[in-house]
Amino acid sequence: MLVGSIEAGGTKFVCAIGDEDYRIQDFTQFPTTTPEETIQMAIDYFKKFDIKALSIASFGPIELRKNSSKYGYITSTPKPNWHDTDFLGEMKKSFNIPIFWTTDVNGSAYGEYVMSTLANEKINSLTYYTIGTGVGAGAISDGKFIGDLGHPEMGHTFLRRHPDDLAFKGICPYHEDCLEGLVAGPTFDARLGKKGKDVPLSDHTWDIMAYYVAQAAIQATLILRPDKIVFGGGVVSESFLVKVRQQFKELLNDYVEVPNLEKYIQMPVVKNNGSATLGNFALAIEELQK
Amino acid sequence: MLVGSIEAGGTKFVCAIGDEDYRIQDFTQFPTTTPEETIQMAIDYFKKFDIKALSIASFGPIELRKNSSKYGYITSTPKPNWHDTDFLGEMKKSFNIPIFWTTDVNGSAYGEYVMSTLANEKINSLTYYTIGTGVGAGAISDGKFIGDLGHPEMGHTFLRRHPDDLAFKGICPYHEDCLEGLVAGPTFDARLGKKGKDVPLSDHTWDIMAYYVAQAAIQATLILRPDKIVFGGGVVSESFLVKVRQQFKELLNDYVEVPNLEKYIQMPVVKNNGSATLGNFALAIEELQK
Repeated sequence: MLVGSIEAGGTKFVCAIGDEDYRIQDFTQFPTTTPEETIQMAIDYFKKFDIKALSIASFGPIELRKNSSKYGYITSTPKPNWHDTDFLGEMKKSFNIPIFWTTDVNGSAYGEYVMSTLANEKINSLTYYTIGTGVGAGAISDGKFIGDLGHPEMGHTFLRRHPDDLAFKGICPYHEDCLEGLVAGPTFDARLGKKGKDVPLSDHTWDIMAYYVAQAAIQATLILRPDKIVFGGGVVSESFLVKVRQQFKELLNDYVEVPNLEKYIQMPVVKNNGSATLGNFALAIEELQK
Repeated sequence: MLVGSIEAGGTKFVCAIGDEDYRIQDFTQFPTTTPEETIQMAIDYFKKFDIKALSIASFGPIELRKNSSKYGYITSTPKPNWHDTDFLGEMKKSFNIPIFWTTDVNGSAYGEYVMSTLANEKINSLTYYTIGTGVGAGAISDGKFIGDLGHPEMGHTFLRRHPDDLAFKGICPYHEDCLEGLVAGPTFDARLGKKGKDVPLSDHTWDIMAYYVAQAAIQATLILRPDKIVFGGGVVSESFLVKVRQQFKELLNDYVEVPNLEKYIQMPVVKNNGSATLGNFALAIEELQK
């Protein structure tokens, strides 16, 4: 039995075919150009296989309230041509199968959740942050996605400023110094005039970043009480997370009990950015079983 | 059919008997002294009625992980004599009926949720903050309590400081200037040397408080995406919430869609501090139906 996965990013689409054990059977990727062209490429790809269900994890913002007339749309995205695109509707015209629809970060969160449970970690809930060009997040509680009014946007909460960073204004066009405005990849350019990959971990900027990311982990901890918090995205490395865990411990000050921090705050378990594809396979299979 | 409710506060116990329509049939309250004395008073009270189920909404911290050997305990509370008290176990010795166990704030959150649905508000999720001596919170997503590792403690997240409040250190013994450390009732004493009730709403301190409480509402909004946020507790008044809504609007800057703010950010719907009792009735009835 085969199912399909689309990880629809603003830069590229990753399409994959999986079996009931979540193993990848086929795989392709292509750049995100116009909706007409790119969605058609996805349709042509999946037409080659006998898939029984499909899951789409899309860049956004997207509409995921089922009672909305825009359910299945990419809505107010700044990406040229993609504003108000009925992505799910186009796929449904070509495939008369169950199709699950969620955000890219929710897809990744679900993949990490499924992989953790497959690895016999006893978890029911997980929070996933991706820190790259922006900061996105997804949350699973009791095996289900959180968010009735829409998907979480926890990359935009406000934080206590680091005393050595007060002069930095932040780069979020909506909120200036929210989490995204303080730790997204482009903040390196804004603070130091160079790319994050060119800034050694010994640079104090990384401590400041860790102070903010730790506060995000504290928000997730105290508000969602998840079993695990995963940080992915281009800004995150294991050595950066070492700093995050230290700051987290200091800031939380043992106020609530959390698991061993090496297990609690982690990089993605699924390798090669495959979390969303794995999550999609699982979500497609669940959609089929509904 | 009758069910029982205990709202166990650090100062007093409120016990009530309700019917299947959540109407109060009987009611009593008594001061919280020692566990032996106070729990026995609750037992004696409920023995007078033929209750089929009971729900306890307790001060804490409490253990609510069912797989813990301390499930049903009040755990590390600073309240004299109550440390490590097997509250649920004592009740179970006297009543061989289904007993639901949760936090005081979860009880209130659930009461507000039930009352809102009874009033035909179409909500699936709700976040409840109480701002009094401390700041507590409970959250319901898709009709269920959030929190696998324990109950939410979202009163202790960090915030962007108000520019006119930088000299104030905050009063939280764990985190200094977390939400509770900045807006709990005793911060009035710490900032101004007088009680909040003696500080007129025209005092700038209330604007500063609103700035922080609005950030809490933004955290709830962006992380939980609830249908409604309720603020209760002694510090909160409708005129204070007017300020909170203004700050919320400015800080969120229309980043995500939320309902009309008068409906979205509200005082408790249940009057006379009755949210927890109503929530308990509903939880007891659900426990019976399991």
